[in-house]
Amino acid sequence: MAAIPVPENLTSLRRMVADTPTRPPLGDVAHLGHAQLFTPVPEETVAFFIDYMGLTVASRNGDSTYLRTWDDYEHHSLVVTRRDQPGIGRTALRCSSREALDRRVAAVQATGATGQWVRDEPSIGDLWVTQDPDGHELALYHETEYWQAPAELAPGLKNQPQAKPGQGVGVRRLDHVNYLAKDVETTTDFVIDALGARPTEQIRLDDGHIGARWQTFTQKSYDLVYTEDWTGSQGRLHHLAFATDTREDILRAADLALDTGVFIETGPHKHAIQQTFFLYVYEPGGNRIELCNPLTRLVLAPDWPLVTWTEAERAKGQAWGLQTIESFHTHGTPRVD
Amino acid sequence: MAAIPVPENLTSLRRMVADTPTRPPLGDVAHLGHAQLFTPVPEETVAFFIDYMGLTVASRNGDSTYLRTWDDYEHHSLVVTRRDQPGIGRTALRCSSREALDRRVAAVQATGATGQWVRDEPSIGDLWVTQDPDGHELALYHETEYWQAPAELAPGLKNQPQAKPGQGVGVRRLDHVNYLAKDVETTTDFVIDALGARPTEQIRLDDGHIGARWQTFTQKSYDLVYTEDWTGSQGRLHHLAFATDTREDILRAADLALDTGVFIETGPHKHAIQQTFFLYVYEPGGNRIELCNPLTRLVLAPDWPLVTWTEAERAKGQAWGLQTIESFHTHGTPRVD
Amino acid sequence: MAAIPVPENLTSLRRMVADTPTRPPLGDVAHLGHAQLFTPVPEETVAFFIDYMGLTVASRNGDSTYLRTWDDYEHHSLVVTRRDQPGIGRTALRCSSREALDRRVAAVQATGATGQWVRDEPSIGDLWVTQDPDGHELALYHETEYWQAPAELAPGLKNQPQAKPGQGVGVRRLDHVNYLAKDVETTTDFVIDALGARPTEQIRLDDGHIGARWQTFTQKSYDLVYTEDWTGSQGRLHHLAFATDTREDILRAADLALDTGVFIETGPHKHAIQQTFFLYVYEPGGNRIELCNPLTRLVLAPDWPLVTWTEAERAKGQAWGLQTIESFHTHGTPRVD
Amino acid sequence: MAAIPVPENLTSLRRMVADTPTRPPLGDVAHLGHAQLFTPVPEETVAFFIDYMGLTVASRNGDSTYLRTWDDYEHHSLVVTRRDQPGIGRTALRCSSREALDRRVAAVQATGATGQWVRDEPSIGDLWVTQDPDGHELALYHETEYWQAPAELAPGLKNQPQAKPGQGVGVRRLDHVNYLAKDVETTTDFVIDALGARPTEQIRLDDGHIGARWQTFTQKSYDLVYTEDWTGSQGRLHHLAFATDTREDILRAADLALDTGVFIETGPHKHAIQQTFFLYVYEPGGNRIELCNPLTRLVLAPDWPLVTWTEAERAKGQAWGLQTIESFHTHGTPRVD
Repeated sequence: MAAIPVPENLTSLRRMVADTPTRPPLGDVAHLGHAQLFTPVPEETVAFFIDYMGLTVASRNGDSTYLRTWDDYEHHSLVVTRRDQPGIGRTALRCSSREALDRRVAAVQATGATGQWVRDEPSIGDLWVTQDPDGHELALYHETEYWQAPAELAPGLKNQPQAKPGQGVGVRRLDHVNYLAKDVETTTDFVIDALGARPTEQIRLDDGHIGARWQTFTQKSYDLVYTEDWTGSQGRLHHLAFATDTREDILRAADLALDTGVFIETGPHKHAIQQTFFLYVYEPGGNRIELCNPLTRLVLAPDWPLVTWTEAERAKGQAWGLQTIESFHTHGTPRVD
Repeated sequence: MAAIPVPENLTSLRRMVADTPTRPPLGDVAHLGHAQLFTPVPEETVAFFIDYMGLTVASRNGDSTYLRTWDDYEHHSLVVTRRDQPGIGRTALRCSSREALDRRVAAVQATGATGQWVRDEPSIGDLWVTQDPDGHELALYHETEYWQAPAELAPGLKNQPQAKPGQGVGVRRLDHVNYLAKDVETTTDFVIDALGARPTEQIRLDDGHIGARWQTFTQKSYDLVYTEDWTGSQGRLHHLAFATDTREDILRAADLALDTGVFIETGPHKHAIQQTFFLYVYEPGGNRIELCNPLTRLVLAPDWPLVTWTEAERAKGQAWGLQTIESFHTHGTPRVD
Repeated sequence: MAAIPVPENLTSLRRMVADTPTRPPLGDVAHLGHAQLFTPVPEETVAFFIDYMGLTVASRNGDSTYLRTWDDYEHHSLVVTRRDQPGIGRTALRCSSREALDRRVAAVQATGATGQWVRDEPSIGDLWVTQDPDGHELALYHETEYWQAPAELAPGLKNQPQAKPGQGVGVRRLDHVNYLAKDVETTTDFVIDALGARPTEQIRLDDGHIGARWQTFTQKSYDLVYTEDWTGSQGRLHHLAFATDTREDILRAADLALDTGVFIETGPHKHAIQQTFFLYVYEPGGNRIELCNPLTRLVLAPDWPLVTWTEAERAKGQAWGLQTIESFHTHGTPRVD
Repeated sequence: MAAIPVPENLTSLRRMVADTPTRPPLGDVAHLGHAQLFTPVPEETVAFFIDYMGLTVASRNGDSTYLRTWDDYEHHSLVVTRRDQPGIGRTALRCSSREALDRRVAAVQATGATGQWVRDEPSIGDLWVTQDPDGHELALYHETEYWQAPAELAPGLKNQPQAKPGQGVGVRRLDHVNYLAKDVETTTDFVIDALGARPTEQIRLDDGHIGARWQTFTQKSYDLVYTEDWTGSQGRLHHLAFATDTREDILRAADLALDTGVFIETGPHKHAIQQTFFLYVYEPGGNRIELCNPLTRLVLAPDWPLVTWTEAERAKGQAWGLQTIESFHTHGTPRVD
């Protein structure tokens, strides 16, 4: 049977999907491992992640604190590091095997990019550190030590890495990183081609260029997002997102923010794109943090078509009608205003 | 670096995971596509799935009604077929590509099992129909037609196949099938070796034999489950499960059951194994149906170790202490008492 | 012990509450009974309340349909009546006894207002019909027939008037009426003095006049609300509100609205005043309808002080920062633009 | 119009409610103020209420710690006092005014009971201390000091007494006390006649005697409950209950209990009687604590009839079918086994 072309938009889909390979094989990059945040006020930032977000400290080393969400099977989900300016440091992606890691290193090198092997994180083996075309630091690794919870954090069930904390929101995992990039299309093409990510949704503006694109390595609908940086800067962060168990967790998080002075930028509401229920707050260092909940939505279809949103569609606001807040287009870290 | 042996239980894990390939590559079987239920009272069974569960009818054909959950991108999630006895008919698994399908057919044939190609379902291409060693019908396919919602069910957002219904619980997807089997170990070995499933949790009884085992093809923590049939029968169903968006949906479902006369067998409560929040009801034909919610729990680790529960651990009951109800061990379909 | 003056704002409270009687005795008006909506499109409006809100029809009579929420112990919670213009008709308040009813009639007459006895509603005895100073029709009654659910709506538990419906949101009760009024202070003084309502919160603008005031007859924090009508019109409706069981019901309601074309004006979000979680939609006749959830918040203190919000405080927006939408200040029914 | 007799069971209600006064006027006892728990391990008990339940400490005095839920407008909701045996100490009921307090003192004395005036609690004026016929200590008071939150617990909104805590479950209020009593009918008749409580539901066993009865002073459906003590002891406690904002809070509470070693006796599930969603745990001193959520259910009807459950109805278990756990009938404090 001949391949049938796949229209870009789901709403016009009516087709018999055939042999067309529409995605790279799952699994060379298994999932987002952890991310590093820079902050000029590391004590306050760490306190925010412990008291408000409900992470716990795995270990500390010099200017860096290694924090973990309760359902992370690895040593750390987040590294908070002192620096003059807030912003995003390393994003580490765990590969499925050493072979998968080597394949991805080769694929990145084939694009002309360079990198280097380091071994500089606790409980993690070799990392190959490189950059995306916009200058964000990316690291690929496979070797990792499974987390063994200390006695006071021992879980009640053996299929869980650590006790769910009674303090703060108690986010389950680091969910995704949303970068700002000067050229979204070029940068995401790199992520797709060299790292094997799959784009699931994107915004194409009226002049044809891509304003934002969502990529996944998993059956979550996105792991790495790139949004256009209107300032023309490079290497900046839009936000880091953590997944909660429920939407009620996010409503409770909004109440806790209100009562503890955490700045709420926008939400809770539901995104039209990807349909995620969200709340955006700022951590004390100035980085934007999202608490997100996708309900049980997954992308299981091996040939799920890329959904493209137009400028007119985006003008309708979020899913239930909330208009996008102005600062969403202007605030990134480091700040460049 | 040398491979470090992986202990079977997560609680005793403290290791550096290395090059050890611990799973087959993801993706030959992409996901559970749909399942077929037999019922002696098809009108009542279909009404149950429409009015209570919130499915809609995609099409009808003779003794079969093709029903769909609102977030299914394919034509149908469930086939309800008239037959003298309730029970499970075909379980259909969608493969990632035609090549993947052919590889799996070859792998099944390599075990000595036989099958045949058919083309007997609406909006689906070639299916290769076979059986697991316990006699449950399995079908593998790749070609499928993406669902195009009729105008009255058009979704509000273009990244969603169909409107969420206002009627009933409104389950999002067919989540998993839980079979009864005379010999769980042999049957699941077939599913693991020939179909490429990955076991995530299991019960090993004191005499060493496997009492139940959970397999996944995805990053959901299970898709196909086999539980020992204490009657020694073969080919029977324990339950068919549908995922809700929230735990609150399940609490609401319990209230709706109470007020509309749907029989609740047990729940709502939380499973210790896999941690799923659950409610078990019987549909009018006698098949057990689970409404389940995993929160945002996923198995993203490419080397997540198989978790084994002992007889003593199982005796503790469910996660929050609920004792397993007696009928859970005795009721299956077809009935053999 | 001498009475200690009660500061108006809770945040400055630090006092020993003594013998000061700060409220009329609870109970002459027991609770909000039901309300009447006018609509130019009664079929569509009734369908909205059945299909989307989850009410059921108790009876019909000429141009009026009597609808009920599932937890109402009386015959009807809402009367939908055909009229050229949308708007609010009668608001009926149930008194605790015949003596209480007579006391309230006398108190209203003592203000110079007039009324008349009618017996024009199904399952309800004598109603005394009058108007508030802004011209909204109010009715007082005591005699009422307890609802006996028909067999198909019989509840599963005997302490519940009717089965919870599987269709739509399934709101529990009519929660409150929010009127627009030309002169909020005068109108609410009437409701407080003549009907025995208790004000719980209010907005006092910088020039000293009252912009809105919330009154209760119960331990719910409000039952009747008056907001200033910027058009200077009289007798208009801002919105009618129905209480859901959970905040999740409201999030589900937002999704159902999105998928079925119900217009969402604003929300879901949390009010700063009264802290209610809310969603505002328009029914097809043009009236604004709120779905609201107060969690388990009650005003149990017999001397709970009136909380006053300033213009500056209101400028901060809703509880989590949402700015009040422009149409919230301009849209009322009947329309006067 | 002549009074129409009110059948005892709601399901047989079909009547025109007329002038019949069916309840004492609301308001002499305004609401449950606070309760006192005895514990042999006060440090552990206080830690349980802080870390797990989410209360905060208002003050300490000798062997007593005064704790408060975040939405309590008074100084304390719970007093934890060291004693050799666990059990219930004083239950304090706030009266609506000094006159109401004096009326109730007179009414209690008219039954032949005695009491004495004390002034022994922080931020509370005169208390009149007496006992119910089963020997539980009851206190009536009116004067109370409104809570002024310290800066670190200042709420985000001025209509809230204190910030909602980020630690533990964060229960909103002390909801009810459930006593054990040798003779339920005699004891509750006292509470109804002398204190002005209203019974809303009861269990009448086949031999005609009352097995349990639920009383309210408010529009919550119950505040004080008495259950028959099968041991024939007197003055014992079945449980103390705290209300959460949501059912999700209770599911989260169950997970926190599982991970922190708090003993879960039964639940989460929904009571048939009063329909409350519940979770029962034991605090370290041995007292049973309920976390409860009534959704938005209230008893607003001034003539809501007493609902009586039979022995056969009780045998059906809880609302969704959970059988009542054996220890529910045997465990009380102090222990008498």
